[in-house]
Amino acid sequence: MQNIPIVLGIDIGGTNTKFGFVDREGRCLADGAIPTRADLPPGQMFRRLHARAGELLAGLGPAVRLAGIGVGAPNANYYKGTIEQPPNLSWRWVDLRAELAPYYQVPVAATNDANAAAMGEMLFGAAQGMRDFIVITLGTGLGSGIVVNGAMVYGFSGFAGEIGHTIVDPAGRLCGCGRNGCLETYASAGGLVLTVADLLAESAAPSALRGLDAAGLSAKLVFEAAQAGDALALAAFDRTGDLLGWSLANAVAYTSPEAIFLFGGLVSAGDLLFNPTRRAMEANLLNIYQGTVKLLHSGVPAGKAAILGAGALIWTELAKGGPG
Amino acid sequence: MQNIPIVLGIDIGGTNTKFGFVDREGRCLADGAIPTRADLPPGQMFRRLHARAGELLAGLGPAVRLAGIGVGAPNANYYKGTIEQPPNLSWRWVDLRAELAPYYQVPVAATNDANAAAMGEMLFGAAQGMRDFIVITLGTGLGSGIVVNGAMVYGFSGFAGEIGHTIVDPAGRLCGCGRNGCLETYASAGGLVLTVADLLAESAAPSALRGLDAAGLSAKLVFEAAQAGDALALAAFDRTGDLLGWSLANAVAYTSPEAIFLFGGLVSAGDLLFNPTRRAMEANLLNIYQGTVKLLHSGVPAGKAAILGAGALIWTELAKGGPG
Repeated sequence: MQNIPIVLGIDIGGTNTKFGFVDREGRCLADGAIPTRADLPPGQMFRRLHARAGELLAGLGPAVRLAGIGVGAPNANYYKGTIEQPPNLSWRWVDLRAELAPYYQVPVAATNDANAAAMGEMLFGAAQGMRDFIVITLGTGLGSGIVVNGAMVYGFSGFAGEIGHTIVDPAGRLCGCGRNGCLETYASAGGLVLTVADLLAESAAPSALRGLDAAGLSAKLVFEAAQAGDALALAAFDRTGDLLGWSLANAVAYTSPEAIFLFGGLVSAGDLLFNPTRRAMEANLLNIYQGTVKLLHSGVPAGKAAILGAGALIWTELAKGGPG
Repeated sequence: MQNIPIVLGIDIGGTNTKFGFVDREGRCLADGAIPTRADLPPGQMFRRLHARAGELLAGLGPAVRLAGIGVGAPNANYYKGTIEQPPNLSWRWVDLRAELAPYYQVPVAATNDANAAAMGEMLFGAAQGMRDFIVITLGTGLGSGIVVNGAMVYGFSGFAGEIGHTIVDPAGRLCGCGRNGCLETYASAGGLVLTVADLLAESAAPSALRGLDAAGLSAKLVFEAAQAGDALALAAFDRTGDLLGWSLANAVAYTSPEAIFLFGGLVSAGDLLFNPTRRAMEANLLNIYQGTVKLLHSGVPAGKAAILGAGALIWTELAKGGPG
């Protein structure tokens, strides 16, 4: 076998940037990670990334050929190949194609990390064969990628699919985006912790979580308390699921997906999160949608999902005839 | 000119069913209307419709040829060609293709009336050339049609695009769908009247609308009072626009449309509705969407829009190679 095409998938995060070489079947042949260091100019990150990726590529031997690069990053714009005003990076504007051009002469495609996750689900995961689905990533915040008629929804702006920033309560919690009551301030790891704080304030019921200061609380601690049967921790998951389920029922009224996939750190809570979410979603669905939507776990391996998603993005573009 | 293809557009409403023959350029060559009489079996309506439509078609002479039929109807399913549990018709299930088969041997396509309106906007109206837009119909209720990547969003169920049935307040007004707090209970002609009733109850401020019983109130009366400067009527439009604008800002976070078109009876209120809606939408948009979305009037003539929309639906299907 010679000249096997592979792509480079890059996931730029607030702390670390992961990258890996992905073949057409969704195998990650080699991967690595470097600190993002968004306090320095983006060019420095791309130079370090190229150095490490070059070593990995050389290690794969002469049989492979780099066919394209996919990038997942917060606020990445699909049409422009830019990162614009990213919420978790101090960079204000990054032209990804210009940054990569000195090192690689291959097509580059970019989108936000949740859209990349949805591309990974479609090409390599549990959404294979589905034409209408939504991926919800539940981590620090809530990201989403929407697929309609078999294609990612980028919208007119290139930034479509920000369900985490739909406002569920105009008088609600302050969001990192500067507005109040965004869904992600409730349905996310951070939102879960805030809900625990609310519940602690609402009653004097005993809880293993009482007495921890706000900075000491984490979604992981809430999960462990819930697993140990702590009523307040369980109530926090229920309240989170109630609000998420209601919001997903609303999401169904837009694009009527066949499935909604939950993905990300908070999903490791399993039934603690899925059960109240599924119950609230079904209870809030308009009659014509009842029984038509599956709430599912992602089928992409969690550890490599961001790289596989970025890889799936550029594979999809190459199949269309290349981005740009 | 011989053998000019035309289509029959049918709009089935709670009271009347309108129909007309539409050419490829969106001209309505002849049209009529009959009472729907949903208290009788649907077959009776289609027999009467055929009798009247046949006369109109004969009147168009031998130069035209019927190429297809498009139907807009509440809860019409695009994939199945059925009407299912329509909210305003006592029919529970109608197989539109089977009903039309005895009379016409041409392709038939169906969707709900708001989706048909969006098809009309795309083919014949102000959305020509746009790939991502939303049409909101504001009448008795709130209907919506969502276009993504240049194609109508039907979703997995065939019923996508029911923004009027997103729940904006789980403890809110009872909706005709049996749930509470659907957007259409606030942002519609009926919702406007309910908001006036709320405002009348909230204060003793003088208003031309005070003293009318609930049954005597109508969106038209509220509009006339607002035009005459009635503060309470103006406040009702502001409150309606506030909630609609917030909801449209949320809608943008799903599909990031280039434009949102408002259409239907309530839109005749013009700036009284558009100004607060536009203001609230912009105020609630996530930063990456600000300035990217136009709020526009429909470009399809109101009187013929339902027929033109149903016609646009089947024209679009014929261009794809025919429905089914």
